[in-house]
Amino acid sequence: MARFDLPRRLAAEALGTAVLLATVVGSGIMGDALAGGNVAIALLANSIATGAILVVLILILGPVSGAHFNPAVTLSFLLQRALPAREAALYAAVQVAGGLLGVMAAHLMFDLPPLQISQHARAGIGQWSGEFIATFGLLAAILGCARFRPEAVPYAVGLFITAGYWFTSSTSFANPAVTVARGFTDTFSGILPGDAPAFIGMQLAAAVAATLLFRWLLRDGAKEA
Amino acid sequence: MARFDLPRRLAAEALGTAVLLATVVGSGIMGDALAGGNVAIALLANSIATGAILVVLILILGPVSGAHFNPAVTLSFLLQRALPAREAALYAAVQVAGGLLGVMAAHLMFDLPPLQISQHARAGIGQWSGEFIATFGLLAAILGCARFRPEAVPYAVGLFITAGYWFTSSTSFANPAVTVARGFTDTFSGILPGDAPAFIGMQLAAAVAATLLFRWLLRDGAKEA
Amino acid sequence: MARFDLPRRLAAEALGTAVLLATVVGSGIMGDALAGGNVAIALLANSIATGAILVVLILILGPVSGAHFNPAVTLSFLLQRALPAREAALYAAVQVAGGLLGVMAAHLMFDLPPLQISQHARAGIGQWSGEFIATFGLLAAILGCARFRPEAVPYAVGLFITAGYWFTSSTSFANPAVTVARGFTDTFSGILPGDAPAFIGMQLAAAVAATLLFRWLLRDGAKEA
Amino acid sequence: MARFDLPRRLAAEALGTAVLLATVVGSGIMGDALAGGNVAIALLANSIATGAILVVLILILGPVSGAHFNPAVTLSFLLQRALPAREAALYAAVQVAGGLLGVMAAHLMFDLPPLQISQHARAGIGQWSGEFIATFGLLAAILGCARFRPEAVPYAVGLFITAGYWFTSSTSFANPAVTVARGFTDTFSGILPGDAPAFIGMQLAAAVAATLLFRWLLRDGAKEA
Repeated sequence: MARFDLPRRLAAEALGTAVLLATVVGSGIMGDALAGGNVAIALLANSIATGAILVVLILILGPVSGAHFNPAVTLSFLLQRALPAREAALYAAVQVAGGLLGVMAAHLMFDLPPLQISQHARAGIGQWSGEFIATFGLLAAILGCARFRPEAVPYAVGLFITAGYWFTSSTSFANPAVTVARGFTDTFSGILPGDAPAFIGMQLAAAVAATLLFRWLLRDGAKEA
Repeated sequence: MARFDLPRRLAAEALGTAVLLATVVGSGIMGDALAGGNVAIALLANSIATGAILVVLILILGPVSGAHFNPAVTLSFLLQRALPAREAALYAAVQVAGGLLGVMAAHLMFDLPPLQISQHARAGIGQWSGEFIATFGLLAAILGCARFRPEAVPYAVGLFITAGYWFTSSTSFANPAVTVARGFTDTFSGILPGDAPAFIGMQLAAAVAATLLFRWLLRDGAKEA
Repeated sequence: MARFDLPRRLAAEALGTAVLLATVVGSGIMGDALAGGNVAIALLANSIATGAILVVLILILGPVSGAHFNPAVTLSFLLQRALPAREAALYAAVQVAGGLLGVMAAHLMFDLPPLQISQHARAGIGQWSGEFIATFGLLAAILGCARFRPEAVPYAVGLFITAGYWFTSSTSFANPAVTVARGFTDTFSGILPGDAPAFIGMQLAAAVAATLLFRWLLRDGAKEA
Repeated sequence: MARFDLPRRLAAEALGTAVLLATVVGSGIMGDALAGGNVAIALLANSIATGAILVVLILILGPVSGAHFNPAVTLSFLLQRALPAREAALYAAVQVAGGLLGVMAAHLMFDLPPLQISQHARAGIGQWSGEFIATFGLLAAILGCARFRPEAVPYAVGLFITAGYWFTSSTSFANPAVTVARGFTDTFSGILPGDAPAFIGMQLAAAVAATLLFRWLLRDGAKEA
């Protein structure tokens, strides 16, 4: 991973997070506009598009930067001492910046104002536990594949998020950069900015929990033949 | 497989079955809530989410515990003498416990009472034959890949269950732990507890039948070049 | 392939074709019943289920029998001298028998009479050209992968048929055994038996055409590095 | 790639582009006809079918011609000096011809006049930026996989286009040959011919931009262990 110099790794993180947000927000707008009020059909489109783009982005940018696109993932790698603290901070910064660029790109494509304030309230024990479970599961997908099946990480992440849109009550934001960025779109995928901190808190807590669990689960287990 | 110690293998079975049930039940609730009464759209979401999460869970936990998450699968490995009887019994026990935890997690996320009694009747020759065929097919997917294409098991299982939701009249429970757990949710994916034993009987019978058939079918065949 | 004895290869062809038909017919019944009259949603379920089961069946039975499940595919292997004429005839016979068993299994699961006569007319230049293109494309998927990417055949076939349900006017039967069997179900996926011969004629013609084209296209090309 | 002689490579490009267009146009007609006015369901079918067929076509024809099926992709390989100018021109010519044949095949299958003039206006800053982003992303999927994960190109392209249908406002034509061909169908997927040049301009500009960016991003990076 560290064989690519830092500027290119940061460019990869920014680009990947931008395309991820353009997809989340753009496919939400498109699905919502075409589904004739059937929210399940809009969410089906939203979930398939997001899962698909994640596979692509991790395939192409994984070899460059590790393809985190997510401060919760970066935190896990920091805890595993796989990334120095300064680089982790820079990763998180460009992820947030890239996410905002991606939201602006989606708005540009759909002829909407560049940045907006979402009015979409998302809060409560149900959704907070949803974010914990979603982020825990996302980290499990990454950490669980890393040792025995690293080539499967792109597919595991894409499929997990496609499922997560449906089985978690919060539709699996699972990513602080995504959460911040989605505060700036008043469309299908938005979140009231005031509701973002609680989501982010659950996401970071889940990243720590998953990192600890998988450290125990996979430690010293022999490599598969 | 046995290179991981038993506590971690049991933890993997419990965790995997819990996430599986959280997905089955959670995506059923979400699909049902959003589909505006079109059951096919709800089932589409339910089947895609369940298939996707199975791929992920088997990818990440297969190397630890074998990723059964299913007493019918554990029974087949017992019959193949790939698992001692005591371990098989422990596997089944934690699968059932994990399944119940998963149902409770889904209910927590959607602000519902932790455990409920399903009122959803599922019975009759049609559905019982559906469960036999579903479980037979699931075991075929696992046993058929095991020899020549073991790396494809996660995808084969996920795709089989996605198809099974649609082509079997029972929507392919195909798993005694899942059947027990779904008795405790009075939502889209529930099953009247009184209807569970017949389902479980068909599932275990199918596991025996598939194990015998594939023992004959694949015995002594040369390995693919 | 020929390393498995003939009885087991024939059993694999019969089993695979049976499960294929149970899926085509069963998911058609389920989709139709749940979609509330929206045929596109029923076909979406039907196409996803059929594509998914094809991946599974070819993964698990390909190493045993070649996983034809289709007299048009068997004809192509006969033309390529990859299968003796007597074995090809037996393959086709058990494919047809397996297909009928699969239809009966679907009807059993959905509490319908075992065999029925379809009233669903499917004819005309448009649909016949659809069957030619569908079968040509299916053979292209198989023959095109065989040389450079044989491990991708299951995915190529499943994805081709999922697409074929939508882009061909006939919804891509592309298989004489499937066509015969679907004459015996008066449900979503049926075909008026009198319309079957023209479909089958186009299918066999397309198999010959694709075999000849790919013999020219891939002959003497160097193996990918 | 160049190990296959030019006539066969051109045949592969023409065949692949023809099947691609038959799928785009045919699945658009089918989805539109069956979806009962719900455009999101039609687009879901259209996007799944197109993504699926792209995986198949690149799997089977990639080893022969490189599986461009797209003058914007061919331009990128020309810029990378991976294809001589004369061959690139021939590639583009047969891609356009193949695309028109594919549209005619779709119309034949659905009993429509062979070639038509689309009345579907597609223009404006939003859609033009959509085409830039779509083509940039498509090239990123190809160029990003080429070095470290070449075997994943078929899946990356298919998944990108499935996502692109939803997250770009223009539904991701991302291909000048496709754009020209879709001018000749007055069905779901058509584009007013007068609107095609602006789309094509954005597509070619994006191909140049992506080629330059990935040249910088991947240059001198060490190969993944």
